[in-house]
Amino acid sequence: MDRPRYIWPDGKRSAACFSVDVDAEAPYLWANRAGLLPYLGQLEQRRFGPREGIWRILDMLDRVDVKGSFYVPSVVAELHPDLLPALCERGHEIGLHGHLHELVSETTDARFEAALDRSLQVFHAQTGIVPSGFRSPAWEMTPAMLAALKDRGLRYDSSLMGYDHPYQICGLVQVPVQWQIDDAIYFKFQGGGADRWPPEPARAVEAGWRDEFQAGRAFGQLFMITVHPWISGRAQRVAMLERLLADIVAYDDVWFATAAEIAAWHLSANEDRFVAEPGLEHLTAALEGGT
Amino acid sequence: MDRPRYIWPDGKRSAACFSVDVDAEAPYLWANRAGLLPYLGQLEQRRFGPREGIWRILDMLDRVDVKGSFYVPSVVAELHPDLLPALCERGHEIGLHGHLHELVSETTDARFEAALDRSLQVFHAQTGIVPSGFRSPAWEMTPAMLAALKDRGLRYDSSLMGYDHPYQICGLVQVPVQWQIDDAIYFKFQGGGADRWPPEPARAVEAGWRDEFQAGRAFGQLFMITVHPWISGRAQRVAMLERLLADIVAYDDVWFATAAEIAAWHLSANEDRFVAEPGLEHLTAALEGGT
Amino acid sequence: MDRPRYIWPDGKRSAACFSVDVDAEAPYLWANRAGLLPYLGQLEQRRFGPREGIWRILDMLDRVDVKGSFYVPSVVAELHPDLLPALCERGHEIGLHGHLHELVSETTDARFEAALDRSLQVFHAQTGIVPSGFRSPAWEMTPAMLAALKDRGLRYDSSLMGYDHPYQICGLVQVPVQWQIDDAIYFKFQGGGADRWPPEPARAVEAGWRDEFQAGRAFGQLFMITVHPWISGRAQRVAMLERLLADIVAYDDVWFATAAEIAAWHLSANEDRFVAEPGLEHLTAALEGGT
Amino acid sequence: MDRPRYIWPDGKRSAACFSVDVDAEAPYLWANRAGLLPYLGQLEQRRFGPREGIWRILDMLDRVDVKGSFYVPSVVAELHPDLLPALCERGHEIGLHGHLHELVSETTDARFEAALDRSLQVFHAQTGIVPSGFRSPAWEMTPAMLAALKDRGLRYDSSLMGYDHPYQICGLVQVPVQWQIDDAIYFKFQGGGADRWPPEPARAVEAGWRDEFQAGRAFGQLFMITVHPWISGRAQRVAMLERLLADIVAYDDVWFATAAEIAAWHLSANEDRFVAEPGLEHLTAALEGGT
Repeated sequence: MDRPRYIWPDGKRSAACFSVDVDAEAPYLWANRAGLLPYLGQLEQRRFGPREGIWRILDMLDRVDVKGSFYVPSVVAELHPDLLPALCERGHEIGLHGHLHELVSETTDARFEAALDRSLQVFHAQTGIVPSGFRSPAWEMTPAMLAALKDRGLRYDSSLMGYDHPYQICGLVQVPVQWQIDDAIYFKFQGGGADRWPPEPARAVEAGWRDEFQAGRAFGQLFMITVHPWISGRAQRVAMLERLLADIVAYDDVWFATAAEIAAWHLSANEDRFVAEPGLEHLTAALEGGT
Repeated sequence: MDRPRYIWPDGKRSAACFSVDVDAEAPYLWANRAGLLPYLGQLEQRRFGPREGIWRILDMLDRVDVKGSFYVPSVVAELHPDLLPALCERGHEIGLHGHLHELVSETTDARFEAALDRSLQVFHAQTGIVPSGFRSPAWEMTPAMLAALKDRGLRYDSSLMGYDHPYQICGLVQVPVQWQIDDAIYFKFQGGGADRWPPEPARAVEAGWRDEFQAGRAFGQLFMITVHPWISGRAQRVAMLERLLADIVAYDDVWFATAAEIAAWHLSANEDRFVAEPGLEHLTAALEGGT
Repeated sequence: MDRPRYIWPDGKRSAACFSVDVDAEAPYLWANRAGLLPYLGQLEQRRFGPREGIWRILDMLDRVDVKGSFYVPSVVAELHPDLLPALCERGHEIGLHGHLHELVSETTDARFEAALDRSLQVFHAQTGIVPSGFRSPAWEMTPAMLAALKDRGLRYDSSLMGYDHPYQICGLVQVPVQWQIDDAIYFKFQGGGADRWPPEPARAVEAGWRDEFQAGRAFGQLFMITVHPWISGRAQRVAMLERLLADIVAYDDVWFATAAEIAAWHLSANEDRFVAEPGLEHLTAALEGGT
Repeated sequence: MDRPRYIWPDGKRSAACFSVDVDAEAPYLWANRAGLLPYLGQLEQRRFGPREGIWRILDMLDRVDVKGSFYVPSVVAELHPDLLPALCERGHEIGLHGHLHELVSETTDARFEAALDRSLQVFHAQTGIVPSGFRSPAWEMTPAMLAALKDRGLRYDSSLMGYDHPYQICGLVQVPVQWQIDDAIYFKFQGGGADRWPPEPARAVEAGWRDEFQAGRAFGQLFMITVHPWISGRAQRVAMLERLLADIVAYDDVWFATAAEIAAWHLSANEDRFVAEPGLEHLTAALEGGT
């Protein structure tokens, strides 16, 4: 009954953020880093993102007057050098997402750090901006990687799910994600025999997202939507996002903000609250029976 | 037409129970018992349970005035020592669920028994209570494990599905579960490539559960809901459970009870009815052609 | 426009059949034919069929006044000797389904024939009846197995999908099945990590089945429902089947019959129509380029 | 805001095409090209296509007055020699689809070219027609295969997804497909343990396709439906397609055309627009860090 409740600015009841993982070719390059085969199927699917998808999403965001947080692997920024400048010009936040969309479970701390440094360099070179946030590919992190972000002056990470509002872990603000409100798990379909389920109609997903938003308002939740332009740039999905966002921004008691704004707010008003420990040593002790 | 019908107290037509498997970190520890890697993704998802999910569920249960049956691996009780006392204080049943959420198909009888003894010890040390029931991780059991429960004076197991009302097997009351009304099979999504289907919207699951409840009333069913705080503590799922439970408790002809109460009722009124045999020797003979 | 249309008796537009694969423990025994492990989870789930599910289905069929076709592995008949006699007494068709639910893809012609002979023997010993039909486990067949059925005087097989009305193949009537209207592919959930999707709510499946029935009426389809008592004996599924069947039997232009009646009709009125060839030699020639 | 928009003839807002991959036995032959086993299950399922499914679809297309684009592996044309002539007689486009439905990921450039030459020969022998388009099995292509099409004078390929309107790649018109509006990913169910999800009810898929069509109209999309007769020839699916197509053809601002007509339009009015590069060398350089 008297559990601590997250405090949002101006007495807002809850918050919402629209985040975009601009993966494009990067995950395909990572998966095929040992050498590209001459197939075009996956690549062309993914290129729908930078060619069409992201521009549809940007136009849609203009129509509903929302600023989003766009996480861009630096190889994508290099392959599409008009991208980061366009995002900045239109007023959106840009954040880091690795160089080649390096999967945490398949990379090393050293490679992670090299990708981080390279992406900081690319972002600065293309836009003059030093991003304040990182989103990990596939939403996995280690304490060492969180420390690497902190060492480079980043303010927040947005990859974990320990709360459904911001919190602190490894000395960094965590702006949490949620699988439930990620587009890829419902809509991604690649072909070639790798898929485990078919794409859902956008309206079925919308219904669940609306329920999560409404129920989350009561709990003071951060409603962190995540989409990918090559996936959600398809027609019915853009239309669904526009319906959903248009309704969310109409709520006076919900704070719609970028992840960077949310991280800044957390530092200003909740810094000492909701502090989590990685606690790996403690768990190892529990495994060994000492608890 | 004249098949035996299960008898519920006070002429009730059917029964309902709300059970909670408080897994938290335990299944992750079991899966990684050979040694933890430094990843935080799964752990933070699971920690949403003890941090937020379980308290939301407890508050919800207070609002609908329901007492549940909470099955807690003892390592979870040790990692979160405020948990078992809080459950008891709020009037809920606490039951055993292994120490490290040992999967029956991956453990031995000896390790099962050691975990059982340890968890009995932890429960008693933290609460002074000797639980009367056990629920197996992943809902698998052997005759030897059922015998181990009986040897330690436990009154019931809640892991099998041979009827949809209580019955007896291996000399112990079985308070049966049902995959259909378990939250994990619809909602659990872990990421990292292991998932085989995306999470369903809570309303779609609710519709199926309501139909099962209604149809089961006619058959004298025990409607045994099972949820996990790290999964169903998410906003729209708590809201769904509240809608569902609020409607179920309004039925005068449905007995809402804890599993311990249901097991006690079975012993008092149906003990000699619905007695099942494990029958493994008989089946082995059938396999060998002797039938 | 002038394609041949299947002819049903008395000017009926289409037909419907309710078939029941009474698998119970048999598929589990087949899968574990090398030796049973002491686990009870799967077995108890499956035993819900003979203990409860089949009787609920039989009572439901009485209420809607439908006679079904029940395919029973002979090991199930031996383990539950009251089963075949009860089915006969209530006026249903009984048909063969192997002895141990031998999967065609995992057995030999010789073992298939031995199982066939044994099951004919068990059926006759328990009921005095010589069944006229066979349904293969998992709906697979070879020409040699179809010939084995024919050699033993069986009149029909019900395992293939080359038309959606009866036809002839390998000199035997084929009363075709359809995955779309099989319960197991939507509802079966076994646990233990083997499942690839969660069970669907009965109403969602009902909607698709009703649409298939309605659209199939226009095409002269045989609407061949298949259910399994351990799966569809669960409460909401029995209720769904009752709603569906009650509506289907109300159509004057639909012939509701057992598979045996349908096979007999085919022989009397369509025997020389819709004759299919296995054509394996022809396809082998096509593969070798000779076409 | 001022992104280039695709131009459709006569001021149409968007376009639609109904394409049919007439796979029948071919993918089964390809998968078993090392030698057929005596099983009939898959074969009979697939033969439902040439026996019933395709004729139902052709009759349905006549009723809604739509001309489709039918892609036929030449082994299917050889096994069913009445097929190509019937398609031509009824006014539909016929296009290439390999000889044995050779999967791009499992074949070589040489075998691809041999299949291409053979299928051109079969099409010409059976109909006198030289097709203008190709659709690859499983929607995969390489630059070399696209060049092989071009070398043989084909005008378009329809296998990739880099835009949702026509474009040019490797010097050939690409009439793009979309997984979202393919029937197989929702409806195909083969049995035998290989399936990863159950078939969806036709109405659920219809709802998503209608939304995609409506939203795509606003974006100038080509709404490229793809169906397979052995899958979508089943009753409720034909009925769904008829409802959907009847509604789409009623839109005055949507151009319904065959893929060949769309490719011809692209060449006449958009040839220099939307030119994509395979760019494999560029990506390899990016992988090697040179970007």
